[in-house]
Amino acid sequence: LLKKSVGIIMGSDSDLPVVKEAAKVLESLGIGYDMVIASAHRTPELTKSFVKNCEDNGFSCIIAAAGGAAHLPGVVAAYTTLPVIGIPIESKALSGVDSLYSIVQMPSGIPVATMAIGGAKNAGLFAAQIVSLSDETVRENFKAYRLKMKSEVEGKNEKLQRLGWEAYLEQK
Amino acid sequence: LLKKSVGIIMGSDSDLPVVKEAAKVLESLGIGYDMVIASAHRTPELTKSFVKNCEDNGFSCIIAAAGGAAHLPGVVAAYTTLPVIGIPIESKALSGVDSLYSIVQMPSGIPVATMAIGGAKNAGLFAAQIVSLSDETVRENFKAYRLKMKSEVEGKNEKLQRLGWEAYLEQK
Amino acid sequence: LLKKSVGIIMGSDSDLPVVKEAAKVLESLGIGYDMVIASAHRTPELTKSFVKNCEDNGFSCIIAAAGGAAHLPGVVAAYTTLPVIGIPIESKALSGVDSLYSIVQMPSGIPVATMAIGGAKNAGLFAAQIVSLSDETVRENFKAYRLKMKSEVEGKNEKLQRLGWEAYLEQK
Amino acid sequence: LLKKSVGIIMGSDSDLPVVKEAAKVLESLGIGYDMVIASAHRTPELTKSFVKNCEDNGFSCIIAAAGGAAHLPGVVAAYTTLPVIGIPIESKALSGVDSLYSIVQMPSGIPVATMAIGGAKNAGLFAAQIVSLSDETVRENFKAYRLKMKSEVEGKNEKLQRLGWEAYLEQK
Amino acid sequence: LLKKSVGIIMGSDSDLPVVKEAAKVLESLGIGYDMVIASAHRTPELTKSFVKNCEDNGFSCIIAAAGGAAHLPGVVAAYTTLPVIGIPIESKALSGVDSLYSIVQMPSGIPVATMAIGGAKNAGLFAAQIVSLSDETVRENFKAYRLKMKSEVEGKNEKLQRLGWEAYLEQK
Amino acid sequence: LLKKSVGIIMGSDSDLPVVKEAAKVLESLGIGYDMVIASAHRTPELTKSFVKNCEDNGFSCIIAAAGGAAHLPGVVAAYTTLPVIGIPIESKALSGVDSLYSIVQMPSGIPVATMAIGGAKNAGLFAAQIVSLSDETVRENFKAYRLKMKSEVEGKNEKLQRLGWEAYLEQK
Amino acid sequence: LLKKSVGIIMGSDSDLPVVKEAAKVLESLGIGYDMVIASAHRTPELTKSFVKNCEDNGFSCIIAAAGGAAHLPGVVAAYTTLPVIGIPIESKALSGVDSLYSIVQMPSGIPVATMAIGGAKNAGLFAAQIVSLSDETVRENFKAYRLKMKSEVEGKNEKLQRLGWEAYLEQK
Amino acid sequence: LLKKSVGIIMGSDSDLPVVKEAAKVLESLGIGYDMVIASAHRTPELTKSFVKNCEDNGFSCIIAAAGGAAHLPGVVAAYTTLPVIGIPIESKALSGVDSLYSIVQMPSGIPVATMAIGGAKNAGLFAAQIVSLSDETVRENFKAYRLKMKSEVEGKNEKLQRLGWEAYLEQK
Repeated sequence: LLKKSVGIIMGSDSDLPVVKEAAKVLESLGIGYDMVIASAHRTPELTKSFVKNCEDNGFSCIIAAAGGAAHLPGVVAAYTTLPVIGIPIESKALSGVDSLYSIVQMPSGIPVATMAIGGAKNAGLFAAQIVSLSDETVRENFKAYRLKMKSEVEGKNEKLQRLGWEAYLEQK
Repeated sequence: LLKKSVGIIMGSDSDLPVVKEAAKVLESLGIGYDMVIASAHRTPELTKSFVKNCEDNGFSCIIAAAGGAAHLPGVVAAYTTLPVIGIPIESKALSGVDSLYSIVQMPSGIPVATMAIGGAKNAGLFAAQIVSLSDETVRENFKAYRLKMKSEVEGKNEKLQRLGWEAYLEQK
Repeated sequence: LLKKSVGIIMGSDSDLPVVKEAAKVLESLGIGYDMVIASAHRTPELTKSFVKNCEDNGFSCIIAAAGGAAHLPGVVAAYTTLPVIGIPIESKALSGVDSLYSIVQMPSGIPVATMAIGGAKNAGLFAAQIVSLSDETVRENFKAYRLKMKSEVEGKNEKLQRLGWEAYLEQK
Repeated sequence: LLKKSVGIIMGSDSDLPVVKEAAKVLESLGIGYDMVIASAHRTPELTKSFVKNCEDNGFSCIIAAAGGAAHLPGVVAAYTTLPVIGIPIESKALSGVDSLYSIVQMPSGIPVATMAIGGAKNAGLFAAQIVSLSDETVRENFKAYRLKMKSEVEGKNEKLQRLGWEAYLEQK
Repeated sequence: LLKKSVGIIMGSDSDLPVVKEAAKVLESLGIGYDMVIASAHRTPELTKSFVKNCEDNGFSCIIAAAGGAAHLPGVVAAYTTLPVIGIPIESKALSGVDSLYSIVQMPSGIPVATMAIGGAKNAGLFAAQIVSLSDETVRENFKAYRLKMKSEVEGKNEKLQRLGWEAYLEQK
Repeated sequence: LLKKSVGIIMGSDSDLPVVKEAAKVLESLGIGYDMVIASAHRTPELTKSFVKNCEDNGFSCIIAAAGGAAHLPGVVAAYTTLPVIGIPIESKALSGVDSLYSIVQMPSGIPVATMAIGGAKNAGLFAAQIVSLSDETVRENFKAYRLKMKSEVEGKNEKLQRLGWEAYLEQK
Repeated sequence: LLKKSVGIIMGSDSDLPVVKEAAKVLESLGIGYDMVIASAHRTPELTKSFVKNCEDNGFSCIIAAAGGAAHLPGVVAAYTTLPVIGIPIESKALSGVDSLYSIVQMPSGIPVATMAIGGAKNAGLFAAQIVSLSDETVRENFKAYRLKMKSEVEGKNEKLQRLGWEAYLEQK
Repeated sequence: LLKKSVGIIMGSDSDLPVVKEAAKVLESLGIGYDMVIASAHRTPELTKSFVKNCEDNGFSCIIAAAGGAAHLPGVVAAYTTLPVIGIPIESKALSGVDSLYSIVQMPSGIPVATMAIGGAKNAGLFAAQIVSLSDETVRENFKAYRLKMKSEVEGKNEKLQRLGWEAYLEQK
């Protein structure tokens, strides 16, 4: 069983297919997490108690995802002194520009570390970078992950050199 | 002394030079109000107690102004069943587009009635339209206000007809 | 039969699949309504007579939906002193940003309470909040609706805690 | 005295410093005009009677300027079968993007010929091009205007060739 | 055979499925037209000779459609003193915002009367409004068209009143 | 075998279906190229060694494609004094506006010649224009390509004149 | 002397008047830092050696500021496994939207924790939150800072209640 | 006297204060140029003859600057097979986004190498990179320029290390 050090909160279960990428990358790096569905506006108490729980259990940071007006990451950040990482979820009409602005443009005093629109994987990786500061195993895992990413690009390039682009595209 | 029926809340005293226009129009229509500076993120209790106070005193609605991530109107709306009117304050880099999106794109379930960027006067007028539904004096004041607006446009046009545009511009 | 207190107007029957969400939420909260298809530009008389009818029947507010140049909510607001709630309909090329700006950026003097792009459900809820001010039954219904929303989020979260996210996603 | 063939309408006298450029270019091309300040929302009757007057006097087209929600050009176009030319006025927070979208994105059936943001001079020129179709004097004036524009560019270029850019900039 | 009075030019045959709406509405109003595929950049001579032909045949105006950088309407406007009506074609990545800005933001001196993104029908109607100024038959047709639009809206509304919205949506 | 004079680099093999258009047009104009998949962030050494290779082999320019934050073209430009041509790849949420801004807004000192979003074909053509300056065969090929483009437009127009637009659309 | 645990890097000395706010807040919370001016494109070696130095000295994170194409934070993040915090600097024409997109839209694998446009103070605070995880003194300082922010808002509100808004504005 | 190898064209003398930066950097790198003020729409012949002159004199490329609808670079590119470098000039209402889109979104077949908004210096540098391919002196000058840029950044950083940021800011 992995030691839990990250909280993951999302405003709606419709965010889960995106947010799960954060969970998957955390697991693959050896980091346990608690995950909750809680709304900043509809279930403020649930939100608050989850944040409290993260602090009480000595978690290193909280990942919060939301779309549209996307207040959840900011509301979470106001409840805690833990670092909060925000994931703007792609919205329907405005493609997530609304989510992005609502999360990144936080006022002086209450920062939210904002990832790309839909950037759940990077939220997990950034959480891992924070955990890495005090956990050598995670740090080694993270460095290995980086090297794997590098080899993947190199592997694709070698394949391209071997096959040429026409064959490469056909084999995909 | 005017009977109070509207709450006005703003996230920072830097919003006051804009928000005062709501207060002024309410007064001119015979509506009293309570006004508070309170932050959704820094002073959540103050925000909550102000909203509670508005409900307890039988207010008709709450005007909430904020800029940037601008969570305040949505947070207020989550605390109450009173109608909440949001004023997006013009922000520095993004000119209030961030404020507008954060206020207007509220999720299903928690609406905020959004005004134009910087539209404090209209927030006051819209509050007055709600108050008008149950207060005949305010309704008459509001209708008189509308007629005055009409005469002002007509007066300007008559002046333009009389003077022509060159002289009109010189006399401004 | 529900007592009618809200008018709903839309510029085109292509808006109906969105706007019906306002009607449904009003009904579920015990509020009757009149609904009309009328264009600000093509059938100004029909628009005007509908607004007149809403005033004569003592309605509490009018919901107006339109897309693109989206003048209808503003034109309706100019005809009446009742509060007007605007729904920006998502448009084809500009995704409703045109609709949003045309509705929310109303000039000083004629406010329109603007909802999110496609936010018909919230328009119905905001209308209910206005009706609530003078109708205790609706107010109780509205409060119950809020609690139901809360339990729905809590129920989803409990399911997530019980199943974990992999199973949760499979069962959806 | 110039024969009048163009109507000019603006929503507010604050638009006049921009709109006057349309008037000036019409005069310089030998075209008379009527100009009015009238609001689509505050003085609909004045707007309507002005449009009626343009039709009754056999005008060729109407220039309408407005900013923000900018409904005036569309409302005018709905009242008449005359061609309507819209000038989006630069607005404060949104720089006229709101004005532009509200004017140009008119629904099928009621076109408004939209000029650049602040493009009052071009509105006058486009009106002149319409008038030109049935007025040979104006057509000649318009062609002369085009030639003059051409010579101005050529004159500036000759000066640049003669002086070089350092001296050119110093002499400006 | 209809008397020709409008030129229609488009930059690519991929624009034709949109632009044909202009042709259809012109025909339905009794207006003949010439249509050409010609590029501002690839076939400048063809573009120029088409414009020349429109002038020589006494056409009333030219409709020009283009997408992306969308220089064609402006280039056509520079070649002629006839009124030019621009249709911004919806583009792939930028949804026609690029096309719109390139057409509407023409410099002082060379106006293009810009329609909505994809607004080919309105381009045809605006051309008809110009033709109407000197052709009474077209003017009568145009007025009849307006009345038909009005009845269509009224017919839809009557159906809505008769059926209610649930049945209305089912019958669509 | 074609003499190689252009380098093509892309950040991910998901860019290849777009970027291949650059390769195809280069080949059709008689220009050889080297192509590589390399990431600015994950494989900086591979990126650097590819650029070095382009310089050592006397290539004329480098085409670099990337999406989202899209740093690759700028990073490549910082490594070399060869002209660098950037292709912004259309991204998911922001449609390539992010890619475009990241590539075109390079700081003073390190230019990247930016093409349209997804403009791989034009990147190939622009590279060919640079190669043309010192290679007469390529220059002749390029001029022939331009003439072919012209005839294609003319051919389509002739077909349109022959068939009319209804039949043209049916035959497509 | 404060123990150094944060690196601060900026692309140009024109960013310093903004970036200094990060430095000031770090100092006020008892955190030492190293600061450097280094360009991703012009001085890649200096950038790389600074990052190396941060790692070698056991720093907790790096703050990187840049405007326009703003590649610096992403380039820094690619060089290190330390958490990187990005500050988008407000740019001239695009107001920092270009800077924001270039920093926040980093590809999967290399996250940058993005702050608001010009959000240097929040970058400092977020760095402090990371440092807090392993440094109790900083954590206490940070909590005290939060409380001070709260009292400041409360103090302003008390002043507003005491004076009323007219007098409040006069005394500012 | 410098050998001329670059043409510089701008649509209006109001662009000269920006465009001169291209001229200055060319001179400093030992490259002569011809400069002209010519409008795509008002003086198409002048534009065409300038382009012809650039080709006849064996120039390597043409720099074209324009704002707003900004057709000039595309029109120039259509007239020639020389590489064309476009500078989007910052416009009033839309801050140059219109200029940027009109220049960068050129259709397949006619590329324009687009620089940042207002990026005249980089236009000069990119032209120099093209000239460098066949002119060793310019190539050496360009490489020296790059080194100078590097030392400038290093010099600023050394000063920062020596003085600290407070003193650095005071001495600026």
